[in-house]
Amino acid sequence: MTSQNVVDLHAKARQDYEAFKARGLKLDLTRGKPAPAQLDLSNELLTLPGEGLYKSADGTDLRNYGGLTGIPEMAEIFAEGLQVPAAQLLPLGNASLAVMHDTLVYALFNGVAGGEGRWIDQDITFLCPVPGYDRHFALTERYGIKMVTVPMTDEGPDMDVVEELVAGDASIKGIWCVPKYSNPTGASYGDETVRRLAAMPTAAADFRIFWDNAYAVHHLTDEHDEILDVLAAAAEAGNPDRVFVFGSTSKVTFAGSGVAFFGSSAANVKWFTGFLGKGTIGPDKINQLRHVQFLKDSKGLAEHMRKHAEIVKPKFDAVERILSERLGGTGLATWTQPKGGYFVSLDVPEGTAQRVVELAKEAGVALTPAGATHPYGDDPADRTIRIAPTFPVLSELEVAIEGLATCVLVAGYEKQL
Amino acid sequence: MTSQNVVDLHAKARQDYEAFKARGLKLDLTRGKPAPAQLDLSNELLTLPGEGLYKSADGTDLRNYGGLTGIPEMAEIFAEGLQVPAAQLLPLGNASLAVMHDTLVYALFNGVAGGEGRWIDQDITFLCPVPGYDRHFALTERYGIKMVTVPMTDEGPDMDVVEELVAGDASIKGIWCVPKYSNPTGASYGDETVRRLAAMPTAAADFRIFWDNAYAVHHLTDEHDEILDVLAAAAEAGNPDRVFVFGSTSKVTFAGSGVAFFGSSAANVKWFTGFLGKGTIGPDKINQLRHVQFLKDSKGLAEHMRKHAEIVKPKFDAVERILSERLGGTGLATWTQPKGGYFVSLDVPEGTAQRVVELAKEAGVALTPAGATHPYGDDPADRTIRIAPTFPVLSELEVAIEGLATCVLVAGYEKQL
Repeated sequence: MTSQNVVDLHAKARQDYEAFKARGLKLDLTRGKPAPAQLDLSNELLTLPGEGLYKSADGTDLRNYGGLTGIPEMAEIFAEGLQVPAAQLLPLGNASLAVMHDTLVYALFNGVAGGEGRWIDQDITFLCPVPGYDRHFALTERYGIKMVTVPMTDEGPDMDVVEELVAGDASIKGIWCVPKYSNPTGASYGDETVRRLAAMPTAAADFRIFWDNAYAVHHLTDEHDEILDVLAAAAEAGNPDRVFVFGSTSKVTFAGSGVAFFGSSAANVKWFTGFLGKGTIGPDKINQLRHVQFLKDSKGLAEHMRKHAEIVKPKFDAVERILSERLGGTGLATWTQPKGGYFVSLDVPEGTAQRVVELAKEAGVALTPAGATHPYGDDPADRTIRIAPTFPVLSELEVAIEGLATCVLVAGYEKQL
Repeated sequence: MTSQNVVDLHAKARQDYEAFKARGLKLDLTRGKPAPAQLDLSNELLTLPGEGLYKSADGTDLRNYGGLTGIPEMAEIFAEGLQVPAAQLLPLGNASLAVMHDTLVYALFNGVAGGEGRWIDQDITFLCPVPGYDRHFALTERYGIKMVTVPMTDEGPDMDVVEELVAGDASIKGIWCVPKYSNPTGASYGDETVRRLAAMPTAAADFRIFWDNAYAVHHLTDEHDEILDVLAAAAEAGNPDRVFVFGSTSKVTFAGSGVAFFGSSAANVKWFTGFLGKGTIGPDKINQLRHVQFLKDSKGLAEHMRKHAEIVKPKFDAVERILSERLGGTGLATWTQPKGGYFVSLDVPEGTAQRVVELAKEAGVALTPAGATHPYGDDPADRTIRIAPTFPVLSELEVAIEGLATCVLVAGYEKQL
């Protein structure tokens, strides 16, 4: 039944694979981490704020306690990029994941503004566009929230599916969105998607969009994806409190030592702050000052992000070039070509993603586990692989992607044998 | 009925009060904040870690993601002071209150190691030694946990009361402790108190001590209060997982930009870390490096704390001197004479604390609200006032304590009229 052609192609791929494996490499494409060269761009932070400098624009001593909602200068810099009015944007600690965690905890224990009771007293569900971000799913799972998947399109989640689900099921309280240069497909939500999300009727009166705008300013070229202002769209549609916006400088300055943000309607900010104040006296304001000095304003931020793009773009180009050369026309793979963000999503023939990751691992290339892009780590089609090209140096990345492509060929032809 | 003596004393006090009020002062004794002069001691941090310095002892690039449990060098510095083996001590974010919040949330949602189910599914109670720390009580209240008070003695909570309560009531899952230079009395737990806490039989198998060792190294003189190693005592008594230890550098370096700690048994650290990793990728490790460079080791820490004492001790001395001069022998007040920490606890005649705070406010001296030292802000005896002497400069503090003493006299004699 198997054509001689496939047998030959498989044999050739297998031969390439053995040769690759024999090189005994150790390469890591698992996580979306900035490369050291990107971190170097922010090394000025290592000596900031500088001798004797510890006051905010209004004269507050930022070394001391207080300032629960962060320093306004920091909010100003990111207001435009995150599309949240500065007065409703709170600069907080070093991890947006922690802000999302806390927001979820507040909602579970107290319900949300205008809502109907605490979420912990109800069986609740979140919609998870897939492929998506594994840490969103892990967080949701940890708090016992049921996850229902929705397919991603090039314009964001499939809104016909979303609208039908939220209209018919009052247990659906939330949806995870990475609206710009989405993790991992790189898709940015179309205006119509944002409008529909903002306006759609929901059976749950206390439905919330968890809008993780992680890559808001992370363009690869001067051609930027721009998304609709979701807070404005929600307000216009009569749902002013529907959206929680999250963001951070993690992939702007130092990944582990940045500033995270919470933004929302004035009512939601008040709701959030009321709980925040029970669990902390305030964020690290000196680190915010450091960032203000370094980034200066939204223009400074944009210039800084261009330097990132200079480092990152050639890596995305290499991924595109090698996948095209090695997999183009084989019918064994499709992949995304994002204009920003941190990932390329690679789709292989159904039932082979795990096999590809396994083969790669044996050959010394660590990939994000197959299935990680889906809730519970379970990609039912076993098809999607997330490529994180930023961390390795270009030459190593090229080798790793060569190896990955070989693994895709081996697994793909293997299946046809 | 009223003796002429009291009438005269009241008239004199009232006269002093009006004179004080006429000065139109604006002084703040509300919170235990370090003074700017104390913050200045750590100004080196403003330029650390320094150009090109971003690696830990083991060569890790601390700018990037990762390092969920903080950098070991930072744990080493505080292991001795917090009495937790460095391997079981996690340096985390900037606020120990946030670490306590998260620990409580993990316990509520998941139960604790060796426990019987999630705490949110049960009506649970925490014991609160009083007078105590208002932020503990606010946090506990926010999560719907019932609070039962236990009187503080000079040796810590009244252990006869504690033992009887925890032995007889399985809903009691925790107790808040500030074991050294307690907030606000300044009392340090006696060895027998620690031993009894560690060993006492509890009806709840999953009982936990929330051991907020906030003032572990905050001595006022060279004569240090030392407390028993509670983790060792608990292990010895066969309750190795009973204690969660918290601490921070908030009153060591910059109050808002420090490093907080979680410490416990190896099993509890594993329990804690398992949840921590769902809500963050890691703490600000560059800030930890900064602290390691600055404090160096436990000896460096001790030397640094002596500089704090040089600034803080004269303020505590002034409080003691003025209260003695003005209130000694009047029978209207007793107060504590701590050898460390941040507070003096002042007891006035039953039913007059609120009145004193009110009078002080009218005269321009802001005090922590009467009742704040008790759960729900309710001091049933209306007797305890917390004095926070650290923040004002000495000359202003002296004026404020003079004013406070006058208010105590007014309220005290008023009651006898």
